[in-house]
Amino acid sequence: MSDTSALEVLVQALKRLPGVGVKSAQRMAFHLLQHDRPGAQQLSNALAHAAQAVQHCERCHTFTEFTVCATCLDERRDVTKLCVVETPADQSAIERTGAFKGLYFVLMGKLSPLDGIGPHDIGLKKLFDRATDGTVEEVILATNFTAEGEATAHAISEGLKARGLHLTRLARGVPVGSELEYVDLGTIAHALVDRR
Amino acid sequence: MSDTSALEVLVQALKRLPGVGVKSAQRMAFHLLQHDRPGAQQLSNALAHAAQAVQHCERCHTFTEFTVCATCLDERRDVTKLCVVETPADQSAIERTGAFKGLYFVLMGKLSPLDGIGPHDIGLKKLFDRATDGTVEEVILATNFTAEGEATAHAISEGLKARGLHLTRLARGVPVGSELEYVDLGTIAHALVDRR
Repeated sequence: MSDTSALEVLVQALKRLPGVGVKSAQRMAFHLLQHDRPGAQQLSNALAHAAQAVQHCERCHTFTEFTVCATCLDERRDVTKLCVVETPADQSAIERTGAFKGLYFVLMGKLSPLDGIGPHDIGLKKLFDRATDGTVEEVILATNFTAEGEATAHAISEGLKARGLHLTRLARGVPVGSELEYVDLGTIAHALVDRR
Repeated sequence: MSDTSALEVLVQALKRLPGVGVKSAQRMAFHLLQHDRPGAQQLSNALAHAAQAVQHCERCHTFTEFTVCATCLDERRDVTKLCVVETPADQSAIERTGAFKGLYFVLMGKLSPLDGIGPHDIGLKKLFDRATDGTVEEVILATNFTAEGEATAHAISEGLKARGLHLTRLARGVPVGSELEYVDLGTIAHALVDRR
């Protein structure tokens, strides 16, 4: 993209975003510089502020600007229920349902030996301490239903089952609004076994 | 994504990038904050610097940090040939071929009445002045072979043809390495008409 080193530096920096290749990075840089300089400045400020201010909640490990996040501090929450999720986005999805009033533990990842991500990287020790602090009665495993998410749930249940906690897993079944014809067989089999 | 306003501000800012929705923005923010804080800081700096420093070359209109870009200042360039492209990325693609040693004019867009982009927005007046400054002998229209690119090329040739300039268009034909069976019929028809 011409001789502009500032532009090349920007394209290279945009390429570090997940899912962004050189063509997308060029398109983004062109868009920001040609049509949305305020957007470029705003993104720059948001990045600098977040990179400096965002840390992990001491209790649930999610992203927050404070020592303990607002969810953990909310006194209307049911402290006997602890929902374990992989990412803040998963936590946000569960929050938006309005169906859960307990607290969370956010792993910030999942067990993935191939990528070198072990129990320490997702804070399992911290989760075990948190789950056995005396207030928690039920741990809801809400990791994803992928191979890695299942392995993570398994490792957590192995670690916790000796400690007298009630362990549950999100129900597997047919998604709301879907037609059986188009649902995969594994899901239908689970829905049959777990029928109610 | 939890209660972190710095995080929400970052997700909203990332959503302004072209082709990025809320899910991608969340994934990007999570990746940067969890795995690549130096990348976040680097992108922040690159954006701030580019938004402040990058301007348009006085002669060819491409992005540059200087009044006139390095390509326009390069004395080894053939000043009698002017290649008109839509974007700096197109210019970069032509440069990488090594097959063109003339100068460029970068429209920074294309005529698109539906989006309210007219001749003034892509600097056609400036292009006409540039092409008729006495040095240019041939104008090569290298806008894209899309409806809008063709319309732009047509508008430029209408504006320039009365001024004694040699106007050419990139050849249309079968792409190198492709099999006729899979090339669209319009392209084959053009390749037949322009056979040599």
